Amino acid sequence: MAFNVAILGASGYTGAELIRLILGHPGLHIAALTGDRKAGQPIAEVFPFLGGFGLPDLCRIEDLNVSGIDLAFCALPHGTTQAVVAALPRDLRIVDLSADFRLRDPADYARWYGKPHAAPALQAEAVYGLTEFYRAEIAAARLVAGTGCNAAAGQFAILPPLAAGIIDPDDILIDLKAGVSGAGRSLRENLLHAELSEGTQAYGAGGTHRHLGEFDQEFTRTAGRPVAIRFTPHLLPMNRGILASCYLAGEARAVHAALGARYAAEPFIRVLPFGALPSTRDVRGTNFAHIGVLEDRRPGRTLVVSVIDNLTKGSSGQALPNANLMLGLPETTGLMAPAVFP
Amino acid sequence: MAFNVAILGASGYTGAELIRLILGHPGLHIAALTGDRKAGQPIAEVFPFLGGFGLPDLCRIEDLNVSGIDLAFCALPHGTTQAVVAALPRDLRIVDLSADFRLRDPADYARWYGKPHAAPALQAEAVYGLTEFYRAEIAAARLVAGTGCNAAAGQFAILPPLAAGIIDPDDILIDLKAGVSGAGRSLRENLLHAELSEGTQAYGAGGTHRHLGEFDQEFTRTAGRPVAIRFTPHLLPMNRGILASCYLAGEARAVHAALGARYAAEPFIRVLPFGALPSTRDVRGTNFAHIGVLEDRRPGRTLVVSVIDNLTKGSSGQALPNANLMLGLPETTGLMAPAVFP
Amino acid sequence: MAFNVAILGASGYTGAELIRLILGHPGLHIAALTGDRKAGQPIAEVFPFLGGFGLPDLCRIEDLNVSGIDLAFCALPHGTTQAVVAALPRDLRIVDLSADFRLRDPADYARWYGKPHAAPALQAEAVYGLTEFYRAEIAAARLVAGTGCNAAAGQFAILPPLAAGIIDPDDILIDLKAGVSGAGRSLRENLLHAELSEGTQAYGAGGTHRHLGEFDQEFTRTAGRPVAIRFTPHLLPMNRGILASCYLAGEARAVHAALGARYAAEPFIRVLPFGALPSTRDVRGTNFAHIGVLEDRRPGRTLVVSVIDNLTKGSSGQALPNANLMLGLPETTGLMAPAVFP
Amino acid sequence: MAFNVAILGASGYTGAELIRLILGHPGLHIAALTGDRKAGQPIAEVFPFLGGFGLPDLCRIEDLNVSGIDLAFCALPHGTTQAVVAALPRDLRIVDLSADFRLRDPADYARWYGKPHAAPALQAEAVYGLTEFYRAEIAAARLVAGTGCNAAAGQFAILPPLAAGIIDPDDILIDLKAGVSGAGRSLRENLLHAELSEGTQAYGAGGTHRHLGEFDQEFTRTAGRPVAIRFTPHLLPMNRGILASCYLAGEARAVHAALGARYAAEPFIRVLPFGALPSTRDVRGTNFAHIGVLEDRRPGRTLVVSVIDNLTKGSSGQALPNANLMLGLPETTGLMAPAVFP
Repeated sequence: MAFNVAILGASGYTGAELIRLILGHPGLHIAALTGDRKAGQPIAEVFPFLGGFGLPDLCRIEDLNVSGIDLAFCALPHGTTQAVVAALPRDLRIVDLSADFRLRDPADYARWYGKPHAAPALQAEAVYGLTEFYRAEIAAARLVAGTGCNAAAGQFAILPPLAAGIIDPDDILIDLKAGVSGAGRSLRENLLHAELSEGTQAYGAGGTHRHLGEFDQEFTRTAGRPVAIRFTPHLLPMNRGILASCYLAGEARAVHAALGARYAAEPFIRVLPFGALPSTRDVRGTNFAHIGVLEDRRPGRTLVVSVIDNLTKGSSGQALPNANLMLGLPETTGLMAPAVFP
Repeated sequence: MAFNVAILGASGYTGAELIRLILGHPGLHIAALTGDRKAGQPIAEVFPFLGGFGLPDLCRIEDLNVSGIDLAFCALPHGTTQAVVAALPRDLRIVDLSADFRLRDPADYARWYGKPHAAPALQAEAVYGLTEFYRAEIAAARLVAGTGCNAAAGQFAILPPLAAGIIDPDDILIDLKAGVSGAGRSLRENLLHAELSEGTQAYGAGGTHRHLGEFDQEFTRTAGRPVAIRFTPHLLPMNRGILASCYLAGEARAVHAALGARYAAEPFIRVLPFGALPSTRDVRGTNFAHIGVLEDRRPGRTLVVSVIDNLTKGSSGQALPNANLMLGLPETTGLMAPAVFP
Repeated sequence: MAFNVAILGASGYTGAELIRLILGHPGLHIAALTGDRKAGQPIAEVFPFLGGFGLPDLCRIEDLNVSGIDLAFCALPHGTTQAVVAALPRDLRIVDLSADFRLRDPADYARWYGKPHAAPALQAEAVYGLTEFYRAEIAAARLVAGTGCNAAAGQFAILPPLAAGIIDPDDILIDLKAGVSGAGRSLRENLLHAELSEGTQAYGAGGTHRHLGEFDQEFTRTAGRPVAIRFTPHLLPMNRGILASCYLAGEARAVHAALGARYAAEPFIRVLPFGALPSTRDVRGTNFAHIGVLEDRRPGRTLVVSVIDNLTKGSSGQALPNANLMLGLPETTGLMAPAVFP
Repeated sequence: MAFNVAILGASGYTGAELIRLILGHPGLHIAALTGDRKAGQPIAEVFPFLGGFGLPDLCRIEDLNVSGIDLAFCALPHGTTQAVVAALPRDLRIVDLSADFRLRDPADYARWYGKPHAAPALQAEAVYGLTEFYRAEIAAARLVAGTGCNAAAGQFAILPPLAAGIIDPDDILIDLKAGVSGAGRSLRENLLHAELSEGTQAYGAGGTHRHLGEFDQEFTRTAGRPVAIRFTPHLLPMNRGILASCYLAGEARAVHAALGARYAAEPFIRVLPFGALPSTRDVRGTNFAHIGVLEDRRPGRTLVVSVIDNLTKGSSGQALPNANLMLGLPETTGLMAPAVFP
């Protein structure tokens, strides 16, 4: 006896990743898939790797029959999601993967996304979806807002020592390296293989990247005082993976201990032995995060490196334990597969 | 209640892939891992992505306790396997991934591998592991010899029309494209990222590649007369995947019909609609094979393209349905996950 | 004292490659660059790697001042070039890189490109730009039509044995592997890094690829009777490079001898020792072609493998020796740099 | 009339890159190539892309005839170079690419390389090869020590503002991203395509990377007081390129102005407009460095990003302007080719 779920926006990478993961989930059944521009097509025409699994064809959102649906995953573009969710029945559980409900304060949303929020009541209702830090709220929520992928990677590394008060909140720097699938299926010249492979560059640097809104919100809340970190993402010639190099002012051993204690019982987060450095390859395609801690040669300086798969733990994978919690299923159901390597 | 399995040679890519797949298999339990050069180490030191799953440490083959083991997977190098298997108890089920037992005729083995076989009795006993064509024999076998990855890709495309007598056995050409993991974890200059990426070349061309031994054996058996195909493999800058472009003399529609009929009930093989061409991306990390058929502009010429993941359907994945059959489990158990894309 | 050249269509990959090569050419000066959609922009905004070389800004074609221009390179899209060239002064030398003037017979053009040619007089005047085979005609020409990149790779391998009458014209097959820059700067999902890397597939198979028009034209002319080859291109996860695996019916030693004799004095074509196989890496970024010949195990069957860089020898590089010949400069000027490796 | 040069250690990547560049240099002639393990072989057997250029075969160092050689490039492994150079004639000009002569202080050498220097007199004589900062000394030198590739990338970004006294010497952090060719042609598992592609990780972090010896030496000398920076390199899935993200405490506009002023007349260094971020793709295969400067949202915090090609500007390319200076040739001779893109 499985729960019926719908995926809204199934023709993008996060939608496809949701389908992949749910096909391996014994307690969920995909009852509907929407994709407005490709409505009427079999999903295998959009993603041939999904052929042969008996999935429903894509339909338009307005043609979605929500009766019998227990939970909907929204993998729609930023900005359009808030109107779509507002039009869905009030009793439908929703796990949203867009940026629309991540920021609690309407002023923050307007600041980072450049326009007022269209559904402020929903914004107030939404629970931030960082599973390990909002577990109880998520289990009780109707609407969960998936985190930004970069925001997740950075928070896993920094929240425990920040909460423990053992690092300087005014001297936090994240130099982040991200694979290209985080940019979605956008048709842009810089995402072409010919222009992206065999090279790297920074982007969204200098305090302009929208995931800073999430960092500010969560770090400020955790520290109990304003926190504004420095953050520079870089685009790497790989499809999946985020590596966040977090430079902290604090004692490395204490930071390692705080991380180890905080995550000891967490099924998806592994703190490596002191001094070991993680690789994105080890979490590719999984819902795991690996974290390493290193002492710098400058006293009192610590490097924490966290790695996740942006599409899985950073987005579609994260959505599944949240759905599990909301539906009363064991949190790890369908999510314990190891990485695909090499 | 799961069967206990051992993996001999767990420190290479096919060993790691076996572990990955078995961790998602509800009926198998990994009871032992061997790796001679790395004996004593946790598997996570050899493959960090396998950390956290409670796997046994690597041990030496001579220290392997086979009591309680229901089946052993051998992922050892070619040539050394025959001696290892000969020393194992006669009642231990074995799925071998090496080339040592693929050729039935000792003369063929000597010809293609350059030395006499060290365990001819075992060679005679072994069943060729192409699941879809030796299902009954595999279910009854004690020792199953996994096929070559290239050999699998080519046979899926060619065996049905060859068996149907609708193609010319004297005019078969396979131009094959293979990812680099098929070469294993060998330390060779041409496998370095700096030398392998951003380029391609042929290798083992001109009738010298050892998988020709398998093609000859199986095609001759199927056709009931000698068959010697042409075969040129190429090394591609990608980690996983084989694409076999098979050029046949025969009517394309008839070939497509023969493939469709033969594989209609096969859970792991998908024949695409006539004219559609498969991509290796759609089977990455899976045990599926996709096959496309195209008519050439020259009358009576047909192109059949088959794709598999060399590490999965071409090696470690193939080993699992064979083990399932040998243990009386449903053939598809643990193997129906879709590809990881992108 | 350098010749002034203009590049029409400088905002695509072949235009950029022309600029790169001409910047290293002592006898040519870039006097004008056009790029309609980006007119008014510095070329460094379109291609940052071209900043700092004192290049002219992009202008619209209608604003191009042709007085003082000795030769124009046209790197415009297929189909639009014929109208542009027709509007240029009759005395301006033109090296065209599009497909518009490659086919001599208007019926052939209509067949392969789906519409009648708009400038049939120019079509009749144009000389096919395969330097090594049309040297004298190119030197005397006003309008030279650059070849297709795949067409060039295949012809280098096949023309000499075909001309020598030592292979069967009715049994020629080219299985070709091509890097992605040959598709240009098109915004298509299958060209995104996330979808192109780590996989391969065939495309334009079954006798539909337009470069077959060139093969038919040139092979028929060379053989003195109709020739229609089989041809299957595959898209590889690399940016530059074409490898053409040419399967011929003929004696390998004789084919090798014919190639060796034909190219002995050619500065850009290297025939490798018998049995050696070329790699695209060895010609990356260069105007060289490498050719290897192998004997198959089936008697009378020969594999010829040729490699070029599609952007250089297959397009923009090829354009330069042709321009050199048209301007009376030594053919190899500016073109003898070795590959960039790794 | 060209100068005769020898390349010692021509079978590695930096040796091959030297050959590539010198083949395009009108004033240098390659008179000898050494490669001990491959002595007697044509260089085209080691690097097929170098076939056809009339290069000398590889010989053993002891068989090298130095009479008539004007300058030797040493591209030998770290540690062995000092003995080789000590055995060469005292009047032979030498540009060394190894790490053996980069550190002036014998104690520094012993600290970072773990053993005493074998040729301290030569160490004292050697000039540090960062062309833009030691131009006069290089022109007068007999022995020039090429810099570390990472060390070069970081120094280009930091030396001018450090010299200007406008950044805090105690708060300098370099988060560096490097392509794999910097690791050389070493046979190590983590450099295999299967293990390096599609992922990233940090290495040599925590103050252990040997290039810190150079940073300490040069930054301390420039600042006139001890400077010890933080430095974390990361290995990226690409062959060429270094991107150094340098986090500085200072005003961004002032830093940009200092860089612009310092490099205004430098032929190989381009400071981008304020706020623009460079890409490694734009300098691939070239001797250029591009530098971008960005203001952080935290007041007084600046990001300087510099990019170079590790094999060219970071090693073999850098060696050429130094050789030009030593031989009295114009510094830029043979080095002004733009990047190969895409």
